[in-house]
Amino acid sequence: MDGMPLSMGSLRTLPWYVAGSQVLGVACVVITGVWMGHYRGGYAWDGSAQFNVHPLCMVLGLVFLYGDAVLVYRVFRNETKRSVKILHALLHMIALVISIVGLVAVFDFHSSAKISHMYSLHSWCGMLTFVLFILQWLLGLGFFLFPWASAQLRSWYLPLHVFFGLLLLVMSVGSCLLGITEKLLFSIKETYPRFTSEGVLANTLGLLLVCFGVVVGYVVTREDFRRPPNPEEEALSVHFKTLSEGEIPSSP
Amino acid sequence: MDGMPLSMGSLRTLPWYVAGSQVLGVACVVITGVWMGHYRGGYAWDGSAQFNVHPLCMVLGLVFLYGDAVLVYRVFRNETKRSVKILHALLHMIALVISIVGLVAVFDFHSSAKISHMYSLHSWCGMLTFVLFILQWLLGLGFFLFPWASAQLRSWYLPLHVFFGLLLLVMSVGSCLLGITEKLLFSIKETYPRFTSEGVLANTLGLLLVCFGVVVGYVVTREDFRRPPNPEEEALSVHFKTLSEGEIPSSP
Repeated sequence: MDGMPLSMGSLRTLPWYVAGSQVLGVACVVITGVWMGHYRGGYAWDGSAQFNVHPLCMVLGLVFLYGDAVLVYRVFRNETKRSVKILHALLHMIALVISIVGLVAVFDFHSSAKISHMYSLHSWCGMLTFVLFILQWLLGLGFFLFPWASAQLRSWYLPLHVFFGLLLLVMSVGSCLLGITEKLLFSIKETYPRFTSEGVLANTLGLLLVCFGVVVGYVVTREDFRRPPNPEEEALSVHFKTLSEGEIPSSP
Repeated sequence: MDGMPLSMGSLRTLPWYVAGSQVLGVACVVITGVWMGHYRGGYAWDGSAQFNVHPLCMVLGLVFLYGDAVLVYRVFRNETKRSVKILHALLHMIALVISIVGLVAVFDFHSSAKISHMYSLHSWCGMLTFVLFILQWLLGLGFFLFPWASAQLRSWYLPLHVFFGLLLLVMSVGSCLLGITEKLLFSIKETYPRFTSEGVLANTLGLLLVCFGVVVGYVVTREDFRRPPNPEEEALSVHFKTLSEGEIPSSP
């Protein structure tokens, strides 16, 4: 607005958005930890406390680490594309392992407590998110980290990978919010309408999860925050363009 | 993939995606209608049946009509930009009016039944979505339909309007899913784990709402589905570019 080139001026705000996302992400993990640790009886690998491992693992794995894995392309702007890809895949792998622990915890707890599995909308959405996440991770590995796919196939798949990547972050956050609602109505249905501290804390957690998703989504979709293509990527991008005669983004 | 220019070949699939979104949207409205009409005692403007107006209005207004208002820029590709803008604003206005009826219904019902207002995560998310929707609609009207804003201010606001527009669709769908979970746990908590027909129907509604949001989101973010700029818009876009020296999308 002050005559400075838009892309140069706005890039200065990127660190603030990234820092904001990290503050929000850490706050979500800490509040989930406090909710389950302080209000819901702490953590264990048996009995009712086993359930409490589930929310903590899902928020840490499928939201916070997943979001950070998405952000690496905006944060590491000058490192080689290959290094950033490996970091992206690694963070997603850690997120996957942590979310598997979270899923085992809740299935184990349901089995011990003789509660039906997979009947609620939360479980349907959560499981769909998890299955699509595994599929997306495997496809990403196959298309972008190993040299199996042709350049044209990669350029066709890239926008789909980016779209489904963001969709899965949205679905993860949404599944967490459904889980929060379920947990509150199972635990404090009678006192929830009186704005008890646990209810307000859990609602606040829900809003902070939304804010984390919004900031990450904004950073990765904002045009002038895109990673600048390096010369070799540029050459590859031109090659793609010639092959397909269409518009191909050069980086996710 | 068969040597045909990407943008020409892929544009042929656009009507299928739009048709798919309409089938999904109508299915969501019909299933909500059946759920409230058949399983929850039908509709009225007093007593417990007044609540049932709420889900139907919110799904019809804040999801289906809102989504269609977003889609008009992809569906009406050759009409003047101004006509499409007016249709976009009008559909959003109808969506807004219907959602106000839905909100009055639930607040009235809560007051009559002496239930606290605004204590649940569903109500927090839903109200936030509604307030941001009004704000977005007013800003859109002020920036794009009336000639108050300068060209540079419009070009600065356009990507924000697009981002928040899609975010609000996501938040609407998310709020509906939270509402479905709440309603099921208030109404059929005991039988829900036994996969009763009402529970399965409502869960299916949740997944269809997600599918509607995904298809609309995919259509409006896919690069080669963008509305082609007409000569006068092109000139305006170049004007924007000169002013800001940055990249400015020429249409939402």
